[in-house]
Amino acid sequence: MNAIDPRGSFQSGTVDMTHGSGGRAMAKLIRELFQKHLGNPHLAAGNDGAVLNLPQGRVVVSTDGHVISPLFFPGGDIGCLAVHGTVNDVAMMGARPLFLTAGFILEEGFPLRDLERIVASMAAAANQAGVCIATGDTKVVEKGKGDGVFITTTGLGVVPDGIDISGNRAEPGDKILVSGTLGDHGIAILSKRQNLEFETEICSDTAALHELVAAMLTSVPDIKVLRDPTRGGLATTLNEIANQSQVGMLLDEHAIPVKPDVAAACELLGLDPLYVANEGKLIAICPAHQTDQLLSVMRTQPLGADAAIIGSVVRDPNAMVQMRTKFGGARVVDWLSGEQLPRIC
Amino acid sequence: MNAIDPRGSFQSGTVDMTHGSGGRAMAKLIRELFQKHLGNPHLAAGNDGAVLNLPQGRVVVSTDGHVISPLFFPGGDIGCLAVHGTVNDVAMMGARPLFLTAGFILEEGFPLRDLERIVASMAAAANQAGVCIATGDTKVVEKGKGDGVFITTTGLGVVPDGIDISGNRAEPGDKILVSGTLGDHGIAILSKRQNLEFETEICSDTAALHELVAAMLTSVPDIKVLRDPTRGGLATTLNEIANQSQVGMLLDEHAIPVKPDVAAACELLGLDPLYVANEGKLIAICPAHQTDQLLSVMRTQPLGADAAIIGSVVRDPNAMVQMRTKFGGARVVDWLSGEQLPRIC
Repeated sequence: MNAIDPRGSFQSGTVDMTHGSGGRAMAKLIRELFQKHLGNPHLAAGNDGAVLNLPQGRVVVSTDGHVISPLFFPGGDIGCLAVHGTVNDVAMMGARPLFLTAGFILEEGFPLRDLERIVASMAAAANQAGVCIATGDTKVVEKGKGDGVFITTTGLGVVPDGIDISGNRAEPGDKILVSGTLGDHGIAILSKRQNLEFETEICSDTAALHELVAAMLTSVPDIKVLRDPTRGGLATTLNEIANQSQVGMLLDEHAIPVKPDVAAACELLGLDPLYVANEGKLIAICPAHQTDQLLSVMRTQPLGADAAIIGSVVRDPNAMVQMRTKFGGARVVDWLSGEQLPRIC
Repeated sequence: MNAIDPRGSFQSGTVDMTHGSGGRAMAKLIRELFQKHLGNPHLAAGNDGAVLNLPQGRVVVSTDGHVISPLFFPGGDIGCLAVHGTVNDVAMMGARPLFLTAGFILEEGFPLRDLERIVASMAAAANQAGVCIATGDTKVVEKGKGDGVFITTTGLGVVPDGIDISGNRAEPGDKILVSGTLGDHGIAILSKRQNLEFETEICSDTAALHELVAAMLTSVPDIKVLRDPTRGGLATTLNEIANQSQVGMLLDEHAIPVKPDVAAACELLGLDPLYVANEGKLIAICPAHQTDQLLSVMRTQPLGADAAIIGSVVRDPNAMVQMRTKFGGARVVDWLSGEQLPRIC
């Protein structure tokens, strides 16, 4: 037992080990910070889990740990990112996201007002995405055994009938689309981390993509593959899908949208935008004859305004991703084989 | 991109930042370590989530971060603990646990053979509990920004019809039962951490309680409250329930089972076993007239052999937990108000 006052102010206090003890200080933290912002009948019940009313249908579950550094960055923070990342993983299975759980690992000494800012950001992102944070958990580790805040979110959703999305469904002849410009998130993080100044601030694209996905699936229910190109970027994500489906891919560099300032920053930093992480973009693969319809519906959505057709699925027993370059040549777009940008999400 | 060979051996290698990059090294780690041990059709599909077949019924979800130190301890390790902890939280809602997700946060430099040992232990625990680890995630943080391995698990289960378990259902007159001896887990961790030697090794009680719960609910479907007294121990858990139900509780110290060597260790260390964590015990609250039936069914189960009736729910507008001591007096059993044992789960 120690003397730290569990009634300490969230404005001036910091996380201490008692906040993870299961005792009075933790109960106060849950009540006055987590429930205050994330409040809903599930959390208010105060049990160690939640009983959910799920609509009829196949249930999708996805989980993602978030360890991004820095915690606050242009365009977002770890709180909204932890919501968007998992909402997107659920949406990429063709499901409507409904519930999230959140597990926090806090480092002793972390300012409670920063924690409150992060939780408020989660709450706003969850509200906007129409998902309920139904249950959670808080652990505290000693100073030097963590890094401020880590948040692991798990998402639950339900797949509408008639939808079948999976990374192993790409077939030769299908077309590959992307919902917008690539590399914004990774460059925003890197510029913040390295204190780089560009002419205009580059912001993370972190966003929940489920409404874009819903519009796409309503218009083109035959979409075969959806995936968000996060860690490892477009290149790594396409290689994953090529490998799952045992197909090749042929991209057209000219068609791949990259913002001019992101392209310039990549050139300056020696990075390839194809390998830089995104947090509000998706890749879709659909039958060729539905491509134009899919592209036009994507462009009607705010998060798909810059959507583009970037290539085709081809027959290839080696499951390679290749690209016609802007200069007319061809190159292999391999997996990311080292570490380009650590702790990007 | 760096020069670390992604084909490095798991026997001699360590976690490096490339294992969290989303690239080739991470794909290899997932395939050759996680899928090797946890392998099932959901993981093999290689998507960012899993589509689950859930039986009809109310779905329960629960999540728990595991940051225990040390990672390996008498009676278990963080791997089996991360399975048992979440299986138990789902079971305490009256549900049959079916699926888990697992999010790993690894520290750079952590030995891969230790990670493999942990993942193998998770796999064995999940197999034994009959749950499928359907999807997961791996992140890596720099050396000094984590502590070996943190594992956040989320569990899904389904509540059978006719079962209604919640912490707000205790009523005056109900009886309070515990499934076995208290304090084993916390004392096992502490003895390992402080290199204490006792005459006999004290082992953690970490175990999955869902079969015990299923037997109890089959025999006494009117059980009102179930909860596992983990962080903060019996005392804190009973205070939580008293607060949720707005009732008092009166315990009988004489009836509370504690192993003699755990009691001796607690005395030596100045700890109260009522506040020490358990990972394989549960508290049940049921109507008085069903107490004997519940106790006898608990005692037929391996994990309930030492079950005992430890007290009653009483009317109390202050929702206090009190105890008749062995010496005939009475004391208030308050919430844990500081930190007794950090990072116990």
